[in-house]
Amino acid sequence: MAMDRQTEKDQAKQPGATRIVRAALIIIGDEILSGRTQDTNLAYLATWLNELGVRLTEARVVADDQGAIVEAVNICRARFDYLFTTGGIGPTHDDITTDAIAKAFGVAAPLHDEALSRLRQHYGKAGLNPARRRMARIPEGASLIENPISRAPGYRIENVFVLAGIPAVMQAMLESVRHDLVGGASVRSHAVAVHLPESVLAGALSDIQDHNPDVAIGSYPYFRDGRVGANLVLRSTDTARIDAVAEEVRAMIRALGAAPIEMTPGWKG
Amino acid sequence: MAMDRQTEKDQAKQPGATRIVRAALIIIGDEILSGRTQDTNLAYLATWLNELGVRLTEARVVADDQGAIVEAVNICRARFDYLFTTGGIGPTHDDITTDAIAKAFGVAAPLHDEALSRLRQHYGKAGLNPARRRMARIPEGASLIENPISRAPGYRIENVFVLAGIPAVMQAMLESVRHDLVGGASVRSHAVAVHLPESVLAGALSDIQDHNPDVAIGSYPYFRDGRVGANLVLRSTDTARIDAVAEEVRAMIRALGAAPIEMTPGWKG
Repeated sequence: MAMDRQTEKDQAKQPGATRIVRAALIIIGDEILSGRTQDTNLAYLATWLNELGVRLTEARVVADDQGAIVEAVNICRARFDYLFTTGGIGPTHDDITTDAIAKAFGVAAPLHDEALSRLRQHYGKAGLNPARRRMARIPEGASLIENPISRAPGYRIENVFVLAGIPAVMQAMLESVRHDLVGGASVRSHAVAVHLPESVLAGALSDIQDHNPDVAIGSYPYFRDGRVGANLVLRSTDTARIDAVAEEVRAMIRALGAAPIEMTPGWKG
Repeated sequence: MAMDRQTEKDQAKQPGATRIVRAALIIIGDEILSGRTQDTNLAYLATWLNELGVRLTEARVVADDQGAIVEAVNICRARFDYLFTTGGIGPTHDDITTDAIAKAFGVAAPLHDEALSRLRQHYGKAGLNPARRRMARIPEGASLIENPISRAPGYRIENVFVLAGIPAVMQAMLESVRHDLVGGASVRSHAVAVHLPESVLAGALSDIQDHNPDVAIGSYPYFRDGRVGANLVLRSTDTARIDAVAEEVRAMIRALGAAPIEMTPGWKG
């Protein structure tokens, strides 16, 4: 289970506890919702953020529809410490993210001198056609995010980071903003697998969770090579506590007549 | 771009036009938001629904947090014709979807006789431990969804379909409800690729979109084998209109000195 929000709030009140920093992601694009394109940005962003101590707490996939984007952006930017968007900042008519972001913030999106200058460097003066100039439209008050791959920048406005949808470009843009993010404690995790059906270990596992509310225990069943099993994932910001609970989980697995399988290579607690 | 909502409403008013039927998906699970598990259910569901004439219009990924699930369920079930949820209906303590669904509908989730009977058949009377019995808790007013793989059922309550998170089980459950869904017209699509940067064709493509508002044209850039290009995807419920607009797109590509590459094998309009 996830550590629930109340538990997190209680933790945050403890002396010396680090605040939980939360982020949301809005994936913009009909190509994801049609099933044509398989999103991979969510999993990448989640892992990348966690290293910085930022927890991805919600994600939404919305269509190329201005109303849908504006609503999702305004809800998520108010609710989370950071909001990331991917997709819809290219040169074609279906790239409507910038207009939606501007509308969400109630600002205009004029041509941005520095963005235009970067595009002019990249394409040459003659190559800067209207479609390319369109990528230099930036909402007022935003600061540019460097794009080392194809130059057309992303941007940050308040707590919202507007990124490209192409994975390689999104990843490069994230590196450009790495030092702008202020995280809390990173969540560490360790997984122990077992070749038993979840329903055989559920009772004992629930007892372990009840006695260790500060370590979130997730159970993820699998069917693999004709065998049923579960990955038991322990999550906490405190690696010593993960180690202690992992010992309880291993003991439970042995008591059920099975063998614990360590799933996190190089884990040292 | 997506056909915008106004265009869809206008179409729906045309004589003989088929209503647009919309669905949302809520993916429940910390394992997706942590980046540990790559979701594939969204793309599968989107494609499967479209064959039935149902359009996936929004998706959300929420944590294993009751408040977050209840809020998302109540918003999406009110807003869309159908809502699907995946994940969180297994036997372990972190499977909290059923309690959240019951809370969203303001009903209890007692043991369901028929669900219990199916689990008893599968596990035997002695094997029906408390964790397995837990999977027979079903919100009042729901009807069961057959699970031919591991027997523990999903369920439908009003317009909400509560499915397992394991892809094979989710897919089997979808087949069990195929005939319960009433769709509108299926969206058909055809893709034409071109080895040109998006920004070279954006102007001409935008003109084609402006003159053909009933066919949604999406442009999806790629970097492949060291070459830049774009997949131009035409979407409509009317294949004759897709064919007509595809001809305009091919002519545009040739006018730019490039060759159109047909990306939809066996396309006959």
